[in-house]
Amino acid sequence: MQKLTVVKVGGKIVEDAESLNKLLSDFSKIEGQKILVHGGGKTATTIAEKLGVKTEMVNGRRITNAEMLDVAMMVYGGLINKNIVAKCQAFGLNAIGLTGADLNIIKAVKRPVKDIDYGFAGDVVSVQTEHLSLLLKHDAVPVIAPLTHNGEGLILNTNADTMAAEISKALAPEFECSLVYCFEKPGVLSNPDDDNSVIGRLSHESFKRYQEDETINAGMIPKLDNGFDALRSGVSEVVITNSSSLAQLNDLGTRLTLD
Amino acid sequence: MQKLTVVKVGGKIVEDAESLNKLLSDFSKIEGQKILVHGGGKTATTIAEKLGVKTEMVNGRRITNAEMLDVAMMVYGGLINKNIVAKCQAFGLNAIGLTGADLNIIKAVKRPVKDIDYGFAGDVVSVQTEHLSLLLKHDAVPVIAPLTHNGEGLILNTNADTMAAEISKALAPEFECSLVYCFEKPGVLSNPDDDNSVIGRLSHESFKRYQEDETINAGMIPKLDNGFDALRSGVSEVVITNSSSLAQLNDLGTRLTLD
Repeated sequence: MQKLTVVKVGGKIVEDAESLNKLLSDFSKIEGQKILVHGGGKTATTIAEKLGVKTEMVNGRRITNAEMLDVAMMVYGGLINKNIVAKCQAFGLNAIGLTGADLNIIKAVKRPVKDIDYGFAGDVVSVQTEHLSLLLKHDAVPVIAPLTHNGEGLILNTNADTMAAEISKALAPEFECSLVYCFEKPGVLSNPDDDNSVIGRLSHESFKRYQEDETINAGMIPKLDNGFDALRSGVSEVVITNSSSLAQLNDLGTRLTLD
Repeated sequence: MQKLTVVKVGGKIVEDAESLNKLLSDFSKIEGQKILVHGGGKTATTIAEKLGVKTEMVNGRRITNAEMLDVAMMVYGGLINKNIVAKCQAFGLNAIGLTGADLNIIKAVKRPVKDIDYGFAGDVVSVQTEHLSLLLKHDAVPVIAPLTHNGEGLILNTNADTMAAEISKALAPEFECSLVYCFEKPGVLSNPDDDNSVIGRLSHESFKRYQEDETINAGMIPKLDNGFDALRSGVSEVVITNSSSLAQLNDLGTRLTLD
């Protein structure tokens, strides 16, 4: 089985020219096939503001009204995605920018309105891997923006962490798949105030324990839930680390384990 | 040889929901493989204005400074391209949005400054068809935005007519290729004031004659130059027509001929 590494990086890393260069330099050295899934929230907020579109966040999630959807399409699908693609090409990676609408890779539904109306936010329904897998086998490097579609002509703003997990799960039968979540800390910490307290291997049982005693904070929980879900669904390896550690994936960060 | 139709449509058609629907309905019925190349200038101008970026045109071409390049990436590569892709999916076309940077399809150089500095405008240098052809053979429908890259990490704003011609030429050895330029008139007119005066077949010789006596206006000339160049380079058929005639490509519009 061919090796595939799916790396998710947040907006901050890809929105800054210097950190993007460092990221892509490390990313380009990862062996085997690879996919980059990116965010871009800060730029979206800046562009929205300039366009007079108000940014509203609830529980850390963006409320995507029609105007904000346009901004998301412009910033995630255009500005940031195409900048990364062009930069990848300069690093010798034959990148291809994709959203879930392209090649019908990820279909979603508009999130049902319960307590909160998230607007044009998408909840993933299905992943089509036929063309994605074809591209990977021809050495293309998909660069994926946090947008999906509903199959009826509508783009939906979608959580990049979830997209990375769903793509990894869907490709797991064909590739020996590693899922890497990059974030600002060096890994999951046993002491939130001490960056040296990285938990090298985190079992699902200890995760539950850390969650109960609130060692692991709220923002981290969906990421870890996604990660454990991916592991249970055939993804070989899930690592939570800092983007600066991409070159030392085997040694640094937190590795999730099911036992 | 498989049949391939490359359709170029201007911004106006794809920027209006109703005309886009009509276009995609007709486009989806074209037999064989297909590619859509689109513009989007009007929206770029509107968004630029909202962002406080001044639009400057010289000889009908946009001056692309750094701020305008961001707008072009957002509007062409993001907003318009992803909207078309999502709408195509609803019409049963497995669309994939691409710029010249994606899969390294079209490399360009920043236009050399002579009398006018066009800024980040690209002149096409080379077309890579390997992955494009692979996608076409797997029934994907490329939707191409008017952006290329220089191979060194920079996106360049590029003329969509030229891109459509270059893509057709590059794919001509593998596909029986038709290039269709859609514009606001029903075809090339022998009397610019009479929409019923469509020239059914336009030879290169008559084109030169019409050009001398100014029957064919300045804006049309680069399009026709591109078209004749494509014909000379192995493209089977070049048609200039109105987007509303896409369903009757064999009967309407102007067909270029070399003799």
